Amino acid sequence: DTVVNEERGSLDTAQIQLGMKYDVKDKRFALYVVQLSNTASFAVPPNEKVYVRIAVLPCSETTSCLFRTKAEFPQEYIRFNEVFWVAISHVALCQKTMRADVCCMTKSLQEQCLAGAQISLAEVSCSGERYTSWYNLLNYKYMKELNRM
Amino acid sequence: DTVVNEERGSLDTAQIQLGMKYDVKDKRFALYVVQLSNTASFAVPPNEKVYVRIAVLPCSETTSCLFRTKAEFPQEYIRFNEVFWVAISHVALCQKTMRADVCCMTKSLQEQCLAGAQISLAEVSCSGERYTSWYNLLNYKYMKELNRM
Repeated sequence: DTVVNEERGSLDTAQIQLGMKYDVKDKRFALYVVQLSNTASFAVPPNEKVYVRIAVLPCSETTSCLFRTKAEFPQEYIRFNEVFWVAISHVALCQKTMRADVCCMTKSLQEQCLAGAQISLAEVSCSGERYTSWYNLLNYKYMKELNRM
Repeated sequence: DTVVNEERGSLDTAQIQLGMKYDVKDKRFALYVVQLSNTASFAVPPNEKVYVRIAVLPCSETTSCLFRTKAEFPQEYIRFNEVFWVAISHVALCQKTMRADVCCMTKSLQEQCLAGAQISLAEVSCSGERYTSWYNLLNYKYMKELNRM
């Protein structure tokens, strides 16, 4: 078994800390990308920065659905503290699924995503309070292996 | 906006209802695949049955990580009511991510997954109580589109 880390549960798994808040009055959803932990567990190419790509899916034609944080060099904790807003009704939001992927740019300037979390927004609260949680990041290599099983 | 359905939030999005329970005494995790709703929203080939593939990732070498329900023809609600057990410590479980994918068999007997939910187990309770929730299913076509944006 693994040594438990007080701050976020375990030392082995890369995680992302996200906050969410739905503002009923202004009909908008706030997504806070707080930080990443343990990005060493997926192989970032040397001297490359990583960033978080957020997608609120399926995309609608009337509002933004894709966001990217600034890029940072890997370290034990990468703090972003960025917030993204989506103008959307609560009913429509509850039908969406959010992907939060950790990506980098390849030398040929292609976006390469290394690991991600996927969060169903079916039960997003409309209380106006901000909820913050840590989510495990699933390495894309396990997804690929799974589809070969 | 969409008409709200009392039972599960909305009429448009395919969803899966899953239950989870961690049994501290026997160190095992129970996953209940209760039912699917609105599978008409992803294109199941005619006359094909669908089933749910559960994966608890990353796989470890000492316990099962991949499970499949029986297959059923698509209808508004597909009730499975199946339970799968994983022998695992709570600390190890909290580092896992679960995929619940809706799949079918192609004519060439390849498994084809149409849509899925991904659930971080970082904050799984060890209270021994069963928690049941509906999760939106993200169609694989949106994942593919995303990686072309």
